[in-house]
Amino acid sequence: MSFLDHIRHANNWNRGDFRAFAVAGHLVGHIRLDRIERLRAFPDTFIIGPDHIALAPGLEDFASRSAAMEEVLEVLRGEGEFPGWRGEYYPIMPEWGDAPLMQVERATCPWLGVRSWGVHINGFVRRGDGLHMWIARRARDKPSYPGMLDNMVAGGQPIGLGLMENIVKECAEEADIPADIAANARAVGSISYCHQFEDGVKPDQQFCYDLELPADFTPRNTDGEVESFELWPIERVTETVRETFEFKFNCNLVIIDFLIRHALIDADGEPDYMALSLGLRRGP
Amino acid sequence: MSFLDHIRHANNWNRGDFRAFAVAGHLVGHIRLDRIERLRAFPDTFIIGPDHIALAPGLEDFASRSAAMEEVLEVLRGEGEFPGWRGEYYPIMPEWGDAPLMQVERATCPWLGVRSWGVHINGFVRRGDGLHMWIARRARDKPSYPGMLDNMVAGGQPIGLGLMENIVKECAEEADIPADIAANARAVGSISYCHQFEDGVKPDQQFCYDLELPADFTPRNTDGEVESFELWPIERVTETVRETFEFKFNCNLVIIDFLIRHALIDADGEPDYMALSLGLRRGP
Repeated sequence: MSFLDHIRHANNWNRGDFRAFAVAGHLVGHIRLDRIERLRAFPDTFIIGPDHIALAPGLEDFASRSAAMEEVLEVLRGEGEFPGWRGEYYPIMPEWGDAPLMQVERATCPWLGVRSWGVHINGFVRRGDGLHMWIARRARDKPSYPGMLDNMVAGGQPIGLGLMENIVKECAEEADIPADIAANARAVGSISYCHQFEDGVKPDQQFCYDLELPADFTPRNTDGEVESFELWPIERVTETVRETFEFKFNCNLVIIDFLIRHALIDADGEPDYMALSLGLRRGP
Repeated sequence: MSFLDHIRHANNWNRGDFRAFAVAGHLVGHIRLDRIERLRAFPDTFIIGPDHIALAPGLEDFASRSAAMEEVLEVLRGEGEFPGWRGEYYPIMPEWGDAPLMQVERATCPWLGVRSWGVHINGFVRRGDGLHMWIARRARDKPSYPGMLDNMVAGGQPIGLGLMENIVKECAEEADIPADIAANARAVGSISYCHQFEDGVKPDQQFCYDLELPADFTPRNTDGEVESFELWPIERVTETVRETFEFKFNCNLVIIDFLIRHALIDADGEPDYMALSLGLRRGP
């Protein structure tokens, strides 16, 4: 296999399996065709057209849209959907930086095919024997991607929180990193993709951060979401990404971006170099 | 104005002004509608269809395609096209890394709307008073973009040369940088765009390199293509990119990418952060 397989896997969606979902004239999501019938039970909320699904007239502001969506999604939840529901809300925006059109609970995003944003942090250490990266292994009892490898810290971007505020919070919860160290995280770009899986589709965009850590610092999980942290030589990280699917799908892209930015992939030696660089930021 | 204006300007093409140009079943170029009539004079070379222009049957390998194209392009040259013709050849490939389908002289690429590749080098110096970047001003008598600001070194990627070989060559010609210093250039990603201008359209992809230079080194032009080099504090570079069109259009993207990778644009503070990061690598 190759690095490029991760770009392909992260962009595996089949648009034909979905119908567009629009809010206030903005295309914000994609709902799987086999789920559309269930929305017919909510004619006060959805207008189901042949080409796209829209919100009903009258749902014209953030509060009314969010309340109507919450009511529907709670019914579906009662029917067994969204086992990961934990009362954390994500903004629905046409593009990052736009005013939120509404908010929905994070676990419902793939079902609706709405974009979510998040932060992924490459935690690394420069040692005499070379660059090392902190790798997390997700807890075995986590609902999503249990036991898979992950970036040192990563988290979705909830509504009402700044990116750096979220980083400080996630660094504390996931890795017991003090705020003054977390504040050294530096925004260095982004990745994006459109990934189809059993929950639906994730057309997500992630902000990538580099955080160089002191050699004597060891992350320690405090919220039960990480089983263990290990400090790997970057060569082992590179090989594991290139040769396996052990990392959660989008972490591979974050690491490939890290390898490119840190000049750890040779442009002359890697025939896929341009395809990788261009492929890290794709959309639906 | 804003950084985003440079992404928009670099991607200003209007597809409707062009007809696709295919070679061996691969879409490789776009020819402006008002120029198609001139190709009817060469029925042994082109088949002009309603949707796309193709090469005539029989032109089935690199040598025959290149020879047929050269013959046509020389005729157009005799009619006043391609004043920049200097006998440097670019490979025509569906994607970087593919086997070249043919070669054409570099000055003809925008007329044919074929993609070219190149290298752009951010030359920078870390000083006690902060990061500085070497900025080139293009010669006033250069046929393209005379007098505009440019990256320290940049050059198109001719056929038959490796990327690093090209960098060593361009560094020597454009800035008198010794090979042992040029070899420290590190590949750190790419930019891509599709830019329409009077010559046609450039759907180009550029390999971006960072080259940290010793504080006591001063570049010096040897081929007449650069009027002068100046070492600017990065804040001045940032402001000039954000507020003006003084840089050649694609250099703005190379520098915005540099600013993002070096964490010199704040993700929380720049509302266009995600749009910038995603917009640096777009295609036709």
